[in-house]
Amino acid sequence: MSFESLWADQSAIGRHPETGGYTRGGWTPTEREATHWFLHQCATRNLTVESDGIGNHIAWWEPPAKPAFRAGVVTGSHLDSVIDGGAFDGPLGVVSALAAVDRLRAEGFEPGVPIGIGAFVEEEGSRFGMPCLGSRVAAGVLPAEKALDLQDRTGVRLRHALEEAGIDPAGVGPSPLLQRMGTFVELHVEQGRGLTAPVGVASSIWPHGRYRFTFTGEANHAGTTLMEDRHDPMLTYAMTALAANKQARLAGARATFGRVSVEPNGTNAIPSQVTAWLDARAADTATLESLLAAITKQSTERAERDGTTVEVTAESVSPIVDFPAGLRDRLSGVLGGAPVLPTGAGHDAGVFSAAGIPTAMLFVRNPTGVSHSPAEYAEPDDCLAGVEALAAVLKDLAK
Amino acid sequence: MSFESLWADQSAIGRHPETGGYTRGGWTPTEREATHWFLHQCATRNLTVESDGIGNHIAWWEPPAKPAFRAGVVTGSHLDSVIDGGAFDGPLGVVSALAAVDRLRAEGFEPGVPIGIGAFVEEEGSRFGMPCLGSRVAAGVLPAEKALDLQDRTGVRLRHALEEAGIDPAGVGPSPLLQRMGTFVELHVEQGRGLTAPVGVASSIWPHGRYRFTFTGEANHAGTTLMEDRHDPMLTYAMTALAANKQARLAGARATFGRVSVEPNGTNAIPSQVTAWLDARAADTATLESLLAAITKQSTERAERDGTTVEVTAESVSPIVDFPAGLRDRLSGVLGGAPVLPTGAGHDAGVFSAAGIPTAMLFVRNPTGVSHSPAEYAEPDDCLAGVEALAAVLKDLAK
Repeated sequence: MSFESLWADQSAIGRHPETGGYTRGGWTPTEREATHWFLHQCATRNLTVESDGIGNHIAWWEPPAKPAFRAGVVTGSHLDSVIDGGAFDGPLGVVSALAAVDRLRAEGFEPGVPIGIGAFVEEEGSRFGMPCLGSRVAAGVLPAEKALDLQDRTGVRLRHALEEAGIDPAGVGPSPLLQRMGTFVELHVEQGRGLTAPVGVASSIWPHGRYRFTFTGEANHAGTTLMEDRHDPMLTYAMTALAANKQARLAGARATFGRVSVEPNGTNAIPSQVTAWLDARAADTATLESLLAAITKQSTERAERDGTTVEVTAESVSPIVDFPAGLRDRLSGVLGGAPVLPTGAGHDAGVFSAAGIPTAMLFVRNPTGVSHSPAEYAEPDDCLAGVEALAAVLKDLAK
Repeated sequence: MSFESLWADQSAIGRHPETGGYTRGGWTPTEREATHWFLHQCATRNLTVESDGIGNHIAWWEPPAKPAFRAGVVTGSHLDSVIDGGAFDGPLGVVSALAAVDRLRAEGFEPGVPIGIGAFVEEEGSRFGMPCLGSRVAAGVLPAEKALDLQDRTGVRLRHALEEAGIDPAGVGPSPLLQRMGTFVELHVEQGRGLTAPVGVASSIWPHGRYRFTFTGEANHAGTTLMEDRHDPMLTYAMTALAANKQARLAGARATFGRVSVEPNGTNAIPSQVTAWLDARAADTATLESLLAAITKQSTERAERDGTTVEVTAESVSPIVDFPAGLRDRLSGVLGGAPVLPTGAGHDAGVFSAAGIPTAMLFVRNPTGVSHSPAEYAEPDDCLAGVEALAAVLKDLAK
């Protein structure tokens, strides 16, 4: 089946009629529909699907002389999205993997080791607030009990979301799927403007932290409370958001406050509490730590002036991932010297690499650098170049 | 019945077990329970309750020689609250009115004109975003069609909320209740720290505006988008919130951003849109207008630098209310020279005064100035002084 028709088919699932975006949180109806579409595609190709307790899948193309047990080359990505995200972030890697397998089969290629297509669940963390949830649990870096207690915005715990999706929470834990993952290669749309060729190879993933800032003040009447009598946590938050932006610019890093929750959130009430989440990333751990320290310092100083308090809680911190240089250079070589570049975005590939699995990533050019938005885009020709590159890499690694 | 037992009874309705606050939005179960409590109290006193289409009530104590039609002296307030508000804002005026009538009856006082106890609905606007909703509709300053189309945060329109509360939306409109309102005196807890005596009399209500600020930028990936490539509306909002605070201080006015809504509100996405509501008040209209202009100017300039846009929409603007000096001075005189002071808080009394009904307000001291918060408080002795003052005023006006 051609990439184009696979892509048209898959990208119709859950597209918002007005924004054109996708909201595929883990275990929600649209994410389930995308996953069922994937499993259906695997079935029509006679791939053997293996699944783990949390709902990650790998569909295997076994070599003709199938051994009792052999590790293989796994590619793939994820099918979930951020809230109102783009079409490419995640699904491009899964659809390209299916198209690459179709291409290799059409060529008559016979793999020497199994080739797997993985679909890993809740990579964005848009529902339960934990990025790479499926791969972290699979790799054993996030304990099952902690994962199952995570809550979505409506208070539903992962435990219950799984039950509603027909998955037994008792099966959640380190995944046997990883035992067959000899090598992992994730193809992904690039998310900045750093790649000028159609296809590139990843060098590293920047360290990345998510920090919850809780600003506490005192609720009061917006009309009668003198400005100088207030303990308004909104002011402390506002100054912190501006400080984060400034400090990130100074450090050549990234800092974003994209999520905010206000109590009681009434027009005529000074808030009692503002909770805001900082997403911070930098080229190395030292820079990330000093960025967070600088933001926290400015925030704390402002809190003192506002008569409020600020509490900073790290919800997740991912260290830098340096993909193995040998594999990286081999891929770049197979692709005729494809450019090598780092990324500020987190990926399941980072989790698997940190877990000791030889891992690499291929990037497909993003002409505008827009991602996590309905405007995210890749040229059709670049997507086809991605499929071609992935097929070449799989052929090389699985020969 | 004593004020104390009435107060204990009423203030038990809907008190949050953890915060100690009240969330009585119009036509919600707890607000309905408080209203039913009021109607029950009126029934046990043989007061004649008249209601209008939106659900305002006046309970009449008719003079012994009841004429076919006669305007009377109305007191009372409201039973709804802000989100997690205090016990006193609203209910104190209704409970004090019941207690004052009990006291006058116990004394054997016979009114020369009817005395009414009013309970006006959705004064805070905490559910439908429109303060003094019940009194505005009753006075004809808010057209029924516009009111019925208002939506709460969950998208429920007033029309449907009324139907669910068993009220026919067809009856909503200018209220016949106001034809019998010869004079209106609202007793209310003071909401600042401006009153040092137990009871005071209002001179005026500051002009007050609610403005919706819509900041629009471009959603993008929080990890990969260069700081200089961003169009982040959160930054424009943050700077606007700080500017509002500063400009209000400079103008001796009040400005508050207490309500914020972010799209898509994800930790790893630069927002596409931030909507925030400004509550602004000042001693006079010119100051309010120049305050809004200064905030809008700073916000617009920052939007240009951020590559975002800002749109400002006035959701409601209430002009200054100067209560009639004759009535005000008469009340102060009856109360032995009670202090006279303005307020920054809006009240149904302001709507009725603007509609041409001779109106006055009594304030009960607020020792901390905290209001719209579970910590809102008035001393029991000051509340009793309020009942005594209200009884004296009713006696004087209805003799």
